[in-house]
Amino acid sequence: MNDYKSKYINDDETIDDLQLKGLNLIQKKDGFKFGVDAVLLSDFASIKKKHRVIDLCTGTGIIPFLIYGKYSPETIYGLEIQDDMVEMAKRSAMLNSLNEKIFFVNEDLKNVEALKKLERFDVVTVNPPYKLNNAGIVNPSDKLAIARHEVLCNLEDVISASRILLKDNGRMFIVHRPERLADIFTLMRKYKIEPKRVKMVHPKIGKAPNIVLVEGQRDGGAYLKWESPLYVYDEDGKYTEEINLIYGRA
Amino acid sequence: MNDYKSKYINDDETIDDLQLKGLNLIQKKDGFKFGVDAVLLSDFASIKKKHRVIDLCTGTGIIPFLIYGKYSPETIYGLEIQDDMVEMAKRSAMLNSLNEKIFFVNEDLKNVEALKKLERFDVVTVNPPYKLNNAGIVNPSDKLAIARHEVLCNLEDVISASRILLKDNGRMFIVHRPERLADIFTLMRKYKIEPKRVKMVHPKIGKAPNIVLVEGQRDGGAYLKWESPLYVYDEDGKYTEEINLIYGRA
Repeated sequence: MNDYKSKYINDDETIDDLQLKGLNLIQKKDGFKFGVDAVLLSDFASIKKKHRVIDLCTGTGIIPFLIYGKYSPETIYGLEIQDDMVEMAKRSAMLNSLNEKIFFVNEDLKNVEALKKLERFDVVTVNPPYKLNNAGIVNPSDKLAIARHEVLCNLEDVISASRILLKDNGRMFIVHRPERLADIFTLMRKYKIEPKRVKMVHPKIGKAPNIVLVEGQRDGGAYLKWESPLYVYDEDGKYTEEINLIYGRA
Repeated sequence: MNDYKSKYINDDETIDDLQLKGLNLIQKKDGFKFGVDAVLLSDFASIKKKHRVIDLCTGTGIIPFLIYGKYSPETIYGLEIQDDMVEMAKRSAMLNSLNEKIFFVNEDLKNVEALKKLERFDVVTVNPPYKLNNAGIVNPSDKLAIARHEVLCNLEDVISASRILLKDNGRMFIVHRPERLADIFTLMRKYKIEPKRVKMVHPKIGKAPNIVLVEGQRDGGAYLKWESPLYVYDEDGKYTEEINLIYGRA
């Protein structure tokens, strides 16, 4: 690593090349590394240049950087409750010279008053923790657990925050697990964010889906469109052409 | 047609062989003919010999006959609002010598008091009209329209009736369109029938789903299982092996 980059990171961190317009991301060596969920969500979202976007549970800030690389919207906020993650994400913004385009905010999305002080957004994106915290044994200082289990926020917190943050007719894009789709639809309807579009992701043709992408619209009319499914691996265990396209490798 | 069968039908009717244990069904020549929905629903349902089953919006009675042929449960009721359809379905039961096993009831499923007078059931099946009646121009004497549009009952009527008719922990099985899945999940939760299992049916690999099968359980615990998808046609436009198995042709 050259000196220019290395001055932005600590010993327990790495800089990963996003292979997208020269963008880089700082991640913890032993922490949660971004995965296919973030890549699929940023591809599924439909975002225009004039849009103002906020990403909830942003963690390292991976989704704001992917969205910037794909859509160049006007501004992108990343909201995150863990202060050390926000500090690291801000260094990623500086490293990419995007600290006047991508802003990270250290806030709890359950803090309604704080959310109301922010502007309204055209788009909310979120890759929330997807496992129910019903075991109740997760160590709240464990960052991997926080990224995966509903320790610090649950699905209802995420959707009610989105209601507050969205402009009229603004859109939210969420990536989650198919097992939670009844919860997602029910909570979206509860907070008057109408489910408009769904895409199921299957590990292979013929296998049950293991990732779901949902678009909702604040006060939108009721019509739900199902997209064609996405298959991640082909018969030979290699990435499908569609996945390679999404990753920009095709 | 031999004389034995022909005495059961009128001039505007036909007798169709269900290709299942010698069962036959009387249908109107120019009426709604049963299709893949009924066949998929009876395959998706999981029914035991000791079960008592009721099929709502039963029409010709196709689903009770398919369920009898596949599972031989203790008794099957078919509920139908149109008196002439009930009269025809009863003749199908006589034609198959099943008039002491399959009972057709002429009732409106919105008549709560009438439903409460019936026994409780282990299983409810339903292939309801799936199009919203939001155009409002459908002729209520048009039987094809009644089978397809929510003229005489809507999804909420069907799910609230199922709540009344099911035993504790009893199961409902519904076939519908994916566009209505947010409605299905929301209404099931409203009437405390927990969505437990979903199977999506795609016309072909890579195409968006066009039929959805959902299992719900009265007062069931929240866990939603997604089954592997079903593809109806293969690359050459022929039925897939799985469809041939369901139709008993493999």
